[in-house]
Amino acid sequence: MKKIKIIAFDADDTLWVNEPLFTDTREKCESILAPYIKPSEIEEKLYETEMRNLHLFGYGIKGFVLSMIETAVQLSYGNISGKEIQQIINMGKEMIQQPIRLIPKVRETLEKLWQEYELMVITKGDLFDQESKIARSDLAGFFSIIEIVSEKSEDTYARIIDRYQINMNEFLMVGNSLRSDVLPVCNLGGRAVHVPFHTTWKHEEIVENLTEDLAYLKIGSIEHLSDILVQLNGKA
Amino acid sequence: MKKIKIIAFDADDTLWVNEPLFTDTREKCESILAPYIKPSEIEEKLYETEMRNLHLFGYGIKGFVLSMIETAVQLSYGNISGKEIQQIINMGKEMIQQPIRLIPKVRETLEKLWQEYELMVITKGDLFDQESKIARSDLAGFFSIIEIVSEKSEDTYARIIDRYQINMNEFLMVGNSLRSDVLPVCNLGGRAVHVPFHTTWKHEEIVENLTEDLAYLKIGSIEHLSDILVQLNGKA
Repeated sequence: MKKIKIIAFDADDTLWVNEPLFTDTREKCESILAPYIKPSEIEEKLYETEMRNLHLFGYGIKGFVLSMIETAVQLSYGNISGKEIQQIINMGKEMIQQPIRLIPKVRETLEKLWQEYELMVITKGDLFDQESKIARSDLAGFFSIIEIVSEKSEDTYARIIDRYQINMNEFLMVGNSLRSDVLPVCNLGGRAVHVPFHTTWKHEEIVENLTEDLAYLKIGSIEHLSDILVQLNGKA
Repeated sequence: MKKIKIIAFDADDTLWVNEPLFTDTREKCESILAPYIKPSEIEEKLYETEMRNLHLFGYGIKGFVLSMIETAVQLSYGNISGKEIQQIINMGKEMIQQPIRLIPKVRETLEKLWQEYELMVITKGDLFDQESKIARSDLAGFFSIIEIVSEKSEDTYARIIDRYQINMNEFLMVGNSLRSDVLPVCNLGGRAVHVPFHTTWKHEEIVENLTEDLAYLKIGSIEHLSDILVQLNGKA
């Protein structure tokens, strides 16, 4: 096996906290809708609406807000007030402007790896949201390539690998989602490291046995990445 | 001057019709809000809301729909009904799924140019919307590079030129917006062709004298691009 030269990182819930922001907002939305409907029903219905709209809105905060409004209208039988709708829009605006909370040890790890490896970001979501988060994270300087994509399929990775003439044997993908970060890269014959995050969006969950035949590494914190690289590449 | 080898096209209102879709939807929104407020006030207020939200939502249909909802809530003093809000969301979903209407002579022109030049797309907007439009336009095959960006500034063009190691002297940008397609490229020392479209979004309008010192070509239809190229490059 060739030595790793390029390390690509997922961003949301790998470099910085993201899903808890959605979880918090879902809970706030439930309390706005409490006069109309039981919280448990809202959660289920909201997820259904999000999934139904995914092919129209894609990932990201704006589509999420539109799905929240749609759910609110439906579950209140149209009785939701204009003021409550505005509250939901404002929650979205707050999400967009939320300060970036880096995951512990991310900066230290990037500082270390950056000296020896070419680092890139491959992140899924809304172009505008993601660019803004990268800028606010103050991490942009570590990455020579930043790719924001609408979906993380095998095709997406193959296109990126091709575009930058990356040798797949020298490539390592690091991320919190088995479905989006680990599986597609392994299926293309590449190597991947799974760094689970405590909260995973239902949509990103996969049936465990899907990964049974795959070889990937799993670490508890991004800081162990240096050790993994020593294992993979041998002592420097 | 070097011969042009790479031609980059804007997409919305250059390759396909876009702004009229927004204009139509604005009018529909005005008729939904007619019981609450005069259409002329709605138009002004909606534009204000769009501009105020631009730094949060970026360009694209989802941000536009959120701004319509916000305007509707405000102008109706919160009296807008859930049913009417849903109508606004549905208008957005219709926009997203609208069939792509190519501008006359686009396909023929690309078919011709494609044999001799490297063609690319540089388009601004929502990643998900734009990818979907490119796929539905059935034009993707003509382009070796497709770049979807959140803003078309000089920096954006400079980054793309650098990323693909393009020689600025061999580059030509074609688009309907002086502000986004022509000005930044000319300011970087590149060449640009302006193909005006009959409807321009207020935000894309610029003061004419801003372009007084710039040299760019203006054509009435994209089909004249071949003639322009003969002028620029000499007879083949």
